[in-house]
Amino acid sequence: MAQVILDISVSLDGFVAGPRPTLDEPLGEGGELLHEWAYPLKSFQERHGRSGGETNVDSELMDEGLRDRAATVMGRRMFSGGAGPWEDDPNARGWWGDDPPFRHPVFVVTHHAREPLVLGATTFTFVTAGVEAAIEQARAAAGDRDVVVAGGAAIAQQALRAGRLDGMQLHLVPLLLGDGVRLFERHVADAPRKLQCTRNVESPTGVAHLTYRSAP
Amino acid sequence: MAQVILDISVSLDGFVAGPRPTLDEPLGEGGELLHEWAYPLKSFQERHGRSGGETNVDSELMDEGLRDRAATVMGRRMFSGGAGPWEDDPNARGWWGDDPPFRHPVFVVTHHAREPLVLGATTFTFVTAGVEAAIEQARAAAGDRDVVVAGGAAIAQQALRAGRLDGMQLHLVPLLLGDGVRLFERHVADAPRKLQCTRNVESPTGVAHLTYRSAP
Repeated sequence: MAQVILDISVSLDGFVAGPRPTLDEPLGEGGELLHEWAYPLKSFQERHGRSGGETNVDSELMDEGLRDRAATVMGRRMFSGGAGPWEDDPNARGWWGDDPPFRHPVFVVTHHAREPLVLGATTFTFVTAGVEAAIEQARAAAGDRDVVVAGGAAIAQQALRAGRLDGMQLHLVPLLLGDGVRLFERHVADAPRKLQCTRNVESPTGVAHLTYRSAP
Repeated sequence: MAQVILDISVSLDGFVAGPRPTLDEPLGEGGELLHEWAYPLKSFQERHGRSGGETNVDSELMDEGLRDRAATVMGRRMFSGGAGPWEDDPNARGWWGDDPPFRHPVFVVTHHAREPLVLGATTFTFVTAGVEAAIEQARAAAGDRDVVVAGGAAIAQQALRAGRLDGMQLHLVPLLLGDGVRLFERHVADAPRKLQCTRNVESPTGVAHLTYRSAP
């Protein structure tokens, strides 16, 4: 059964991006530190058109994701590169370059209707009917494989509140960012909600890769 | 070298207590769920004067803490039982009963001076000069053993901001509380600060016991 999985890196103090994003620093101040664990990996390097890189439990985890997942849902900021006046640019090509690393259908939640954008092996489809509609379209595109909800925080929270996530894979980074965009604002749950931790993979970088699903 | 360690259970969405604490529910709504992993353990039961209980990696971790730590620092709410009109009661005996489970010196940070309170094998000393002073007194009392900063969040944040923590042991509970008291409010770090994850113990309950210290 295909699953809808939130997959996101988060600092120990709960942030998925730093404050004050710019086009040069779309993840906000310090936000790139959240992803340092991934950059050296062979899987990451390959996806970005480079050879070499490390293989370890982290790259195995990343390979598993690439194998199991066949569509991505993201917010318009993640598409265009952080918050800013450019995020609503109807001609934005995004900040993922000419050959984005997804190489499967990506559904961008936005208020601005536009035609699909094909870049390399990735097609970005712009969905104006909200997160749930984007997830439905992504499920249809993914067939019997999984859908990844990649962020940002607003999209993750909407999917969580709507009960549309089957699971979460959080990469808990040993880092205090101090400020930025919180993954879990208050009221992602209306009442205490138990989850089940189905996996805890310890990275050589100190990241804890934690997989959760709803408690049975 | 004796260490000062924050040791606290926190929900996946970052809360160390639920909202609206009362004397009957001093951890706030749902807050007791944060500690469910500990209740069945042999170490916990013994500390609360009962026999039996489970032994597993969780109880080993708890035993280790009991062995290595010789003094505790806490806030007045943790002493008296959550936030409320009773927290500043100068005659409060706390909500830890006649034989509190600490059995070593406890230093309570408060604005209200009062004489030490001896209950069973635990002496509560009330410190009006702030968190750093309480940590200093606890260090002196603990000798070559460690000091545990037990919470609540305000005390933890003050100790962290003051650079007075050598490490943190977080028990990350697979639970969305939805609301309550955040462990990490914004600005616990003024700039991004890397930590080192020195241990990641996976509990059979799905709790991730994560130990951090400052990066070298």
